[in-house]
Amino acid sequence: MTRLRTVACLLPLAALTLAQSPTPQVFGYRDFAQQAKWDKIFMAVPDAALAGQHLKTLTAAPHWASSPEDYATAVYVADKFKAAGLETQIVPYKVLLTKPVKILIEAFDADGKKLMSGPTPEHVDPNKFGGDPFQDDPRILPAFNGSSPSGDVTAEVIYANYGTLADFQQLTKLGISVKGKIVLVRYGENFRGIKTYIAQQYGAVGVLIYSDPADDGYFRGDIYPRGPYRPETAVQRGSIQFLPIYPGDPTTPGVASTPDLPDSKRIPVDKLQNNQPSIPTNPLSYHDAAPILKALGGAESPRDWQGALPFTYHLGASSNLGAGGTHGTPPKITVHMHLDQDIALRTIWDVTGTIDGTDSTQKEDWVVAGNHRDAWVYGAVDPNSGTAAMLETVHGLGELLKQGWKPQRRIVLCSWDAEEEGLIGSTEWAEQHETHLAHAVAYFNTDVGVAGPNFDAAAVPSLKQFVREVTKEVASPKGGTVYEQWKADQATAPTRRTHKPTESTDSDVHIGTLGSGSDYTPFIQHLGVPSTDIGSEGPYGVYHSVFDNYNWFTKFADPTFVYEQQQARVFGLEILHMADADVLPYDYQLYGKEIVGYLEAAQKQATAKNLTLDFTAAQAAANRFAAAGTAIRATQAAPSSNPVALNKSLREAEGALLNPEGLPKRSWYKHTIYAPGEFTGYAAVVIPGVNEGIDAPDAPRAQSQLAALAAALNHSAAILENANKQATK
Amino acid sequence: MTRLRTVACLLPLAALTLAQSPTPQVFGYRDFAQQAKWDKIFMAVPDAALAGQHLKTLTAAPHWASSPEDYATAVYVADKFKAAGLETQIVPYKVLLTKPVKILIEAFDADGKKLMSGPTPEHVDPNKFGGDPFQDDPRILPAFNGSSPSGDVTAEVIYANYGTLADFQQLTKLGISVKGKIVLVRYGENFRGIKTYIAQQYGAVGVLIYSDPADDGYFRGDIYPRGPYRPETAVQRGSIQFLPIYPGDPTTPGVASTPDLPDSKRIPVDKLQNNQPSIPTNPLSYHDAAPILKALGGAESPRDWQGALPFTYHLGASSNLGAGGTHGTPPKITVHMHLDQDIALRTIWDVTGTIDGTDSTQKEDWVVAGNHRDAWVYGAVDPNSGTAAMLETVHGLGELLKQGWKPQRRIVLCSWDAEEEGLIGSTEWAEQHETHLAHAVAYFNTDVGVAGPNFDAAAVPSLKQFVREVTKEVASPKGGTVYEQWKADQATAPTRRTHKPTESTDSDVHIGTLGSGSDYTPFIQHLGVPSTDIGSEGPYGVYHSVFDNYNWFTKFADPTFVYEQQQARVFGLEILHMADADVLPYDYQLYGKEIVGYLEAAQKQATAKNLTLDFTAAQAAANRFAAAGTAIRATQAAPSSNPVALNKSLREAEGALLNPEGLPKRSWYKHTIYAPGEFTGYAAVVIPGVNEGIDAPDAPRAQSQLAALAAALNHSAAILENANKQATK
Repeated sequence: MTRLRTVACLLPLAALTLAQSPTPQVFGYRDFAQQAKWDKIFMAVPDAALAGQHLKTLTAAPHWASSPEDYATAVYVADKFKAAGLETQIVPYKVLLTKPVKILIEAFDADGKKLMSGPTPEHVDPNKFGGDPFQDDPRILPAFNGSSPSGDVTAEVIYANYGTLADFQQLTKLGISVKGKIVLVRYGENFRGIKTYIAQQYGAVGVLIYSDPADDGYFRGDIYPRGPYRPETAVQRGSIQFLPIYPGDPTTPGVASTPDLPDSKRIPVDKLQNNQPSIPTNPLSYHDAAPILKALGGAESPRDWQGALPFTYHLGASSNLGAGGTHGTPPKITVHMHLDQDIALRTIWDVTGTIDGTDSTQKEDWVVAGNHRDAWVYGAVDPNSGTAAMLETVHGLGELLKQGWKPQRRIVLCSWDAEEEGLIGSTEWAEQHETHLAHAVAYFNTDVGVAGPNFDAAAVPSLKQFVREVTKEVASPKGGTVYEQWKADQATAPTRRTHKPTESTDSDVHIGTLGSGSDYTPFIQHLGVPSTDIGSEGPYGVYHSVFDNYNWFTKFADPTFVYEQQQARVFGLEILHMADADVLPYDYQLYGKEIVGYLEAAQKQATAKNLTLDFTAAQAAANRFAAAGTAIRATQAAPSSNPVALNKSLREAEGALLNPEGLPKRSWYKHTIYAPGEFTGYAAVVIPGVNEGIDAPDAPRAQSQLAALAAALNHSAAILENANKQATK
Repeated sequence: MTRLRTVACLLPLAALTLAQSPTPQVFGYRDFAQQAKWDKIFMAVPDAALAGQHLKTLTAAPHWASSPEDYATAVYVADKFKAAGLETQIVPYKVLLTKPVKILIEAFDADGKKLMSGPTPEHVDPNKFGGDPFQDDPRILPAFNGSSPSGDVTAEVIYANYGTLADFQQLTKLGISVKGKIVLVRYGENFRGIKTYIAQQYGAVGVLIYSDPADDGYFRGDIYPRGPYRPETAVQRGSIQFLPIYPGDPTTPGVASTPDLPDSKRIPVDKLQNNQPSIPTNPLSYHDAAPILKALGGAESPRDWQGALPFTYHLGASSNLGAGGTHGTPPKITVHMHLDQDIALRTIWDVTGTIDGTDSTQKEDWVVAGNHRDAWVYGAVDPNSGTAAMLETVHGLGELLKQGWKPQRRIVLCSWDAEEEGLIGSTEWAEQHETHLAHAVAYFNTDVGVAGPNFDAAAVPSLKQFVREVTKEVASPKGGTVYEQWKADQATAPTRRTHKPTESTDSDVHIGTLGSGSDYTPFIQHLGVPSTDIGSEGPYGVYHSVFDNYNWFTKFADPTFVYEQQQARVFGLEILHMADADVLPYDYQLYGKEIVGYLEAAQKQATAKNLTLDFTAAQAAANRFAAAGTAIRATQAAPSSNPVALNKSLREAEGALLNPEGLPKRSWYKHTIYAPGEFTGYAAVVIPGVNEGIDAPDAPRAQSQLAALAAALNHSAAILENANKQATK
């Protein structure tokens, strides 16, 4: 209770009186007054202390997907869903998961002297800064990379910086081949699976991925438990699935891995090679990576490859550059990787909770909202800060139900499993419900719900203004509204965001672009469901390690759970407004502007690369789409009494941006405007077919993707034009 | 001989045929043909192998100013001067020098446990990468800061980043006082004496200055003896004299410390306090600094204060910022500094060598060229790479003399002593010859003659084009001319230079601005002698340590001494051309443009600071000066048969830029356009009176300095206008 009192003190009068202001005009509503009343009732419910209790319970034990402890969290979530009055299901899938049996990494110098043998257990001094009460649980799996094959390789080591395409290209320029070598790379810059994806193409036989203290360790700030950054032995686990090819169960792309799916419908494991990692890959702490990196000889690494370990980084091989590079033949440092993985079909459990819609014509237009539940270890921040908040959102929805509220559209809340392995729970569910989701009106995601006090969001352009409006209704523990603090924070620390702002077409608070790395991917990029991703960020150096636990969370992220409460409120308002808006509050005007901008940038890039491409048709289509967006926005602002047909068209316009053929090399990704980059993984590539064709460079591919883009834009524009004609006649 | 053959191979044909091209038009010459012949004869003489021999001899022993080994180098230089036919003198001065008797630095944790005790002797592993043959000489003095008083203080420690004014201001903002504390700062950003100057004003009782590996150690590249960067125990010695107040013997500002100067003409040592360091200051290696820095508690340092040592840097005290800052009361880390210095008048020895001028009216218009000879230890790069090259320049001049050449103007070559202690040898000599130097036509400096292959220069604007022209005549070992390589190097690595380019008013190769830190200061900034400073740079991490020795030099700077040869040639051509030009090749057109630009920038700065200043008179004067510069440049380009009067005026125009009253707080500095910054030391502040008045901010001071600047510019402009009128009538 003390905690709650503290929270109340943090809310200034301005914030507390928000709901007493005159009812604002909200886009999509004819009259917001009734909604404002429900919002107010809803917002009083999410409880900071209860969120803290959820978090404590959910993170009491390591709960890796498919484990008994994971199932226990599914039951806990299902119970809370049921208690709120949701029609609740635990939905099992049978999916391919990698579980480590034995992991051994050892390194030897030229004389065969052992330099290290790991992985070293993750451990901090129990006698300093309070130690860590969670680190000794025997259920903690050894640190590993999901989707890595088993393997037993011994090879020399090459340091390859972040393992980006540019890094491997630079090694080639320096005359250094990774063929037959183990590459040592650091986390950061791209999705970890891409490191293996590229290394494998360059002929490497193994990959070690370590966390450099420059990126999330002592160079950034105090390390755990003194501060929030990664301590010496902490390892970033994580999947190395080739996410940009397709996510989900690797044996069933495009198909749901229901428990009854016959094996004959699955791709056999030995046929997966091209689209899955084929070389052993394992993460390391900097405690374990440092002795290897320190021993490497050969050329000095390029100076911007230097991290924060206390020695000069070398590449492990001589370069072909005379100056400042070669120092004779480097000593042979070899690493032995022995990974014994148990790769098998295992059962995972999504949890869904449904509130039926009342509008006879629109109740099948689902509003889906989700967060994953499985964790590499305890997952206090990732993902259970999101789960704890979502449960308080559900708590609030339950209170509304008790008071007689019913949404117009069906609401489906989802607790995904096996996201960490490759967005598996969400992808299988989305693939199972593809038909329904073709007219779902939104997917609201959260993953890292709370890692600190700085709210941030990513969204499709059509929902950017929607997210801003919602955050204007919620009070921030820092005073004022979430929106105001978000804006202030962007002004002072514009580069801190993980959702890096792209070149914005408006001057409002920046909202990021959806790339991948969380469960919105099957919704927006495979099925064209307009999506957002929200959370509250902070200095978070223990990602995917044992130390992302309740102790860390209550020391560094949100000791009084007030940001949990904030998150529950914002997430809840997204759901409520989308379920009950008269007109779907999509902003195709902004969407159009952004696409026009993407094409301009792509054309510049093509010119810079001396590619001869004809942008005329695509630009005309983008301009047409933008004009249609502007026209329909005016129509949406003055909704008719029966906007059902308009809403249907608004939703279809997003669907029309899908290309049924999908992207070259990765047909599962069907959206023509957004995809995770083939060589970035996390970060979005906009108009991906076109831009990746230009980057390759592959002019014919780019030209054909321009045509596909033009077709999609024209299709979508025609839908909007037609809807507008109907609505205004 | 093998070495020389290698060198020849490096010279492409284009370079070798330079002297066969048609005689170029060179600014200042009516007909360059005769000069071109002498240049060619001269350039054939400087010998790479001989330069290497000079360097080896000069750096055979530590030769700290006033030591017997220092005297031996004076005799060596004098012998070479005499051998070339120069009228040679060894010129003694009696000056105040600090010599360490005992240096003890130790640190203790809160329980009184000793964390370190130093200084640790500078030492590298003799069995790795060839070790170092020089490190064990018993004549090496302990690492110390010249001009530090003796002292015995024990106090808590505060980390203050680079110890700039901004850093101390930020500590104040964080609520952290250094009063009564010892500040630990790192080398870099400003002149080391400024760190003490500011710390002392903020009430600190001691200063420790260490070399962070981020700045010149392993973070930059391989450390000695594997690579050229600073190894763990290496210390940067150096003077902490308050250089921007005045350089030279502190007891005789403005007066030459000749051996016969009576004590009554000197400021007693106990009266020096305001203008000299009064708190003990000592340098540390990162080996010795790391245990102190690591133990510091309190607030995390601002993140851009983090260096490359493997832990998070803290300030040593709690800050007044809640967020991410304070972690309770930090543990009391104390340092005990016991410095026992022998501060006494000691004899130093400049060496001068003169070649008399032949022109009856201009032979007293000296061309002075110099380099210091004293070193903190061996000084292979700093300064004897310059001395070795200068001796080969002298070798070339000797050859010309043998062939009957005589310069029009008198040439004076100088080997300065005790530069490291505060530009003492040059300052005392310049003060002694003030009357003569009032019409000296140039001072050409070199200090770090060769640290690597990248030529660079700083100069007053009137000599920028002169330096460029000279470098177009000299072949580079990399191929082409020095000028071409210089330009190419600036294009690829524009930020590497120590002489950072200022906003340039022309698009040619950038030439830096003269700040301080070497012997040109008394010439340009006290006496108004147009000056340049040249050298050849490279990765040089062993500055002012034991490891700046012949072994380092031949491994990393210039193994075959071809850049020594290049340096001897460029330095020699500067002297030759200035001694024999028909019209003094000063470019007042560029000078004027630059000053107009300085005033525009200052006015913007004043506006940004909301200072109400009247720039009208100063701007009018600058425009007048610029117009006069443009007019006279045309006259210089077509020299009359008797330009003696013109030359006199050209020289007087620079002298007129002096303000006899000097700068506020530091009257020794008389130049109105250039001075070392009060708070930078090395880096120049342009139109210093005005800009420092604005920075303070002190509007009345800035306004009165604007008036002084206007007066100087008008005076100078009038001289040029009048000369032009005389020359063209």
